[in-house]
Amino acid sequence: MPAIAVDAMGGQHAPVAVVQGVADVSLHTDIECVLVGDAARIQHILEGVAYNPERIDIVHAGEVIGLDDEPQEALRSKRDASLIAALQLVQRDRCAALVTAGNSAAAILAARRELQLLPGVRQVALASVYPRTVDHQGQDPLALLLDVGATVRCEPLELVQFAVMGTAYARVISKVTAPRVALLNMGHDAGQGGEVLPAAHRQLAALSGLNFVGNIEGNERTSGRADIVVCEGLLGNIVLRLLESVATMAVDLTTSTAQRNWRWRAGMAIMASGVDRLRALADYASYGGAPILGIDHPVIKAHRRSTAQSVANAVKVAAKAVRDGVTREVAAAVAAMG
Amino acid sequence: MPAIAVDAMGGQHAPVAVVQGVADVSLHTDIECVLVGDAARIQHILEGVAYNPERIDIVHAGEVIGLDDEPQEALRSKRDASLIAALQLVQRDRCAALVTAGNSAAAILAARRELQLLPGVRQVALASVYPRTVDHQGQDPLALLLDVGATVRCEPLELVQFAVMGTAYARVISKVTAPRVALLNMGHDAGQGGEVLPAAHRQLAALSGLNFVGNIEGNERTSGRADIVVCEGLLGNIVLRLLESVATMAVDLTTSTAQRNWRWRAGMAIMASGVDRLRALADYASYGGAPILGIDHPVIKAHRRSTAQSVANAVKVAAKAVRDGVTREVAAAVAAMG
Repeated sequence: MPAIAVDAMGGQHAPVAVVQGVADVSLHTDIECVLVGDAARIQHILEGVAYNPERIDIVHAGEVIGLDDEPQEALRSKRDASLIAALQLVQRDRCAALVTAGNSAAAILAARRELQLLPGVRQVALASVYPRTVDHQGQDPLALLLDVGATVRCEPLELVQFAVMGTAYARVISKVTAPRVALLNMGHDAGQGGEVLPAAHRQLAALSGLNFVGNIEGNERTSGRADIVVCEGLLGNIVLRLLESVATMAVDLTTSTAQRNWRWRAGMAIMASGVDRLRALADYASYGGAPILGIDHPVIKAHRRSTAQSVANAVKVAAKAVRDGVTREVAAAVAAMG
Repeated sequence: MPAIAVDAMGGQHAPVAVVQGVADVSLHTDIECVLVGDAARIQHILEGVAYNPERIDIVHAGEVIGLDDEPQEALRSKRDASLIAALQLVQRDRCAALVTAGNSAAAILAARRELQLLPGVRQVALASVYPRTVDHQGQDPLALLLDVGATVRCEPLELVQFAVMGTAYARVISKVTAPRVALLNMGHDAGQGGEVLPAAHRQLAALSGLNFVGNIEGNERTSGRADIVVCEGLLGNIVLRLLESVATMAVDLTTSTAQRNWRWRAGMAIMASGVDRLRALADYASYGGAPILGIDHPVIKAHRRSTAQSVANAVKVAAKAVRDGVTREVAAAVAAMG
C-alpha cells in the first residue's frame, strides 16, 4: 500500500504529538507514513521515541500554516507550507491519502486546489464524528455529522450529495450496510425549514439506496436514531463547536473536582457510565478524525487538539480508507445519483 | 395597570401549573390576571390553592391547541382555543399582555394574526433567555438569544432589527444601559458566513446606539461576552434545543445518581457550583419566559415544561414589560433605525 502523507506541523500539539502518533503507528501496524514539515525538528522528536525507520519517511517543508491564519492569505503567502507540500505528495501519487490536524479551512481550500473534485460533486463537505447513544449491539458508537464548515448555505442537491457521500463513507469505514441518514431541522414535519430543507427532504426520501429516516431536531442529535446527520456548514459548525464546549465544560468540572476530593472520587465511580457519555463527547483522542468528502483522494482531518493517540487513530482511518477504496465508493455513489 | 392574559391551557403541565402560578402571583404582587381556558377546570384548581380572588378573573374558552398540533391547521380548526381567546383580550385592550407556555409556533402565528406588527418591523422574533458566565458584578446572569424559531432564514436587515429590538428589551427588562450584541457565526472574521452574515455585520457595526461586539462562535455561546446573541431562526432553534438536551442529560445524570447513593451526595456538595452552572442551563423554572418581539403588545412565551414557579415568573416579566413600556421602547428603537 502507498504511504499516508501526514502534515507534521498541523494542530495545537504539533509537531510533537503528530510525530509521536506516527512513530506509534510505525511500531504496531504495517502502515507507511511520510511526515511533512520541519525535517530537523521531526528528526529530533523521532530520536526521543521508539519507531520503525522502515515505515517513516520525512519530506522537508519550511513553512507552517497556523491554526488562526486567514486561510486564503496563508495559502497565498506560505507556498512552502507543510500542508501544501503534503497535499502535493498525494497529488503526485507519492502518497495515497493525507492526514492533518491543522487549520480546517486552509485544509479544505488547499485540498480543493491541489486535488480534484469527484465528477458531479458540487461542494466538498467536512464531516465530523461524534459519539451517540447505541440502540442495539454492534451499532457504531460514532455518528457522522456533515457539513461542519466547508460550506455556509447549501442548495438541496448539495445536502443530498452529502447524504450520499456520507453513506458511502460510513458503509466502508463503519461496516454498516444501510446507515440511517437524517436531516437536521427545526421540527419533524417534512415541510418545515423554509425552502431548502423541505426540497432536500423530498429528494432524500425519493432516492433509492439511501436509508433516509427524516428530520432530526437539535435535542436528538446525540440519540441513536441516525448514523449520518446532514446539514449546511454554518449550522453544522456552530452545533459542533457548541457541543464540544458544553462537553468540555462538563468534563473539566468532573475531572478537576475528582482530583480535589476523595469523596467525589467515590461518587465518580458510581456515576462512571454517565460521565463517560459526557466525556466521550469531548474526547477527540478516540475518534481518529473525519473526512473531507468529495475529492479524489482520502483527506482525514483530525481535531486541532489532537494528541499522539488521536493522530495515530487518524492515520489508521486514512489507511483503512485507502485499503477499502472509500474514494471509489463515494465516486460510484455520486455517479449513481444520475 | 391593566390585567395580564394568561393562556391557562398551554404547556406540558397545564392547566394545573399555570393556575397555581397565577394564584401565587395574586397573593404576592398587585398584578391582575385573566386566566383563559376551561372555566370549570380552572375554578376547580383554584379551589385547591390559596389565591386572591380580587386579582384573578376567568374567561372561558372551550378548545386547546396541543403542543404537537400543526399550528396552521390548529388555528384554522380550533376557533375557540384558549390561546386565541387570550390574544383577543389583548387585542381589545381588556388585557395589556399575554403569557403562554403552549405551542410556540402557534403562539407566533396567532400573535401575528390577532395583533399588529410594529411599524417598520419586517419579521417578529422569538427570543430565549439562557444563563451564561458573569464577567463582572451586577451583570445579568441571563443573556438573550434571538431568533429561535419565528423565522427560518433571514435577510441582513432582519437580523439587524432583531439586534435593535433585543437591545431595547434588555435595556428595559435587565436595566443594562448598553447591552452587548453579538452575531452568531462560524468564525470571528467579519467576512465569514456567506453573504447574509457579513452584510449584517457591516450594518450592525455602522449602527449608532448599538453596542455591537462582533461575531460570536458556537463554543462561546455560554460566555459572558454578549448580552444579546442574534441569529436566524433555524440556527437559533437547533442551538437552543441542543443546549437544552445536553444540559438536561447532565442534570438527569447528577440527580438520579444523587438519589441512589450517599457517597455521590457527598461528592455533589463539593462540586455544587459547577453542577449549578449546568443545572441552570436546564432550569426553565427560574427564567420567566422570553418575548415575541416586533408586535404591538408584550407577548411572553414561557417554556413548554414550565412549572407553577416559571409561570409566576413569566407573569411578572409580562407585568414589568407593560409597566416599563417595553413595546414603546422597541417601537422607538426600530423607528430610530430610519
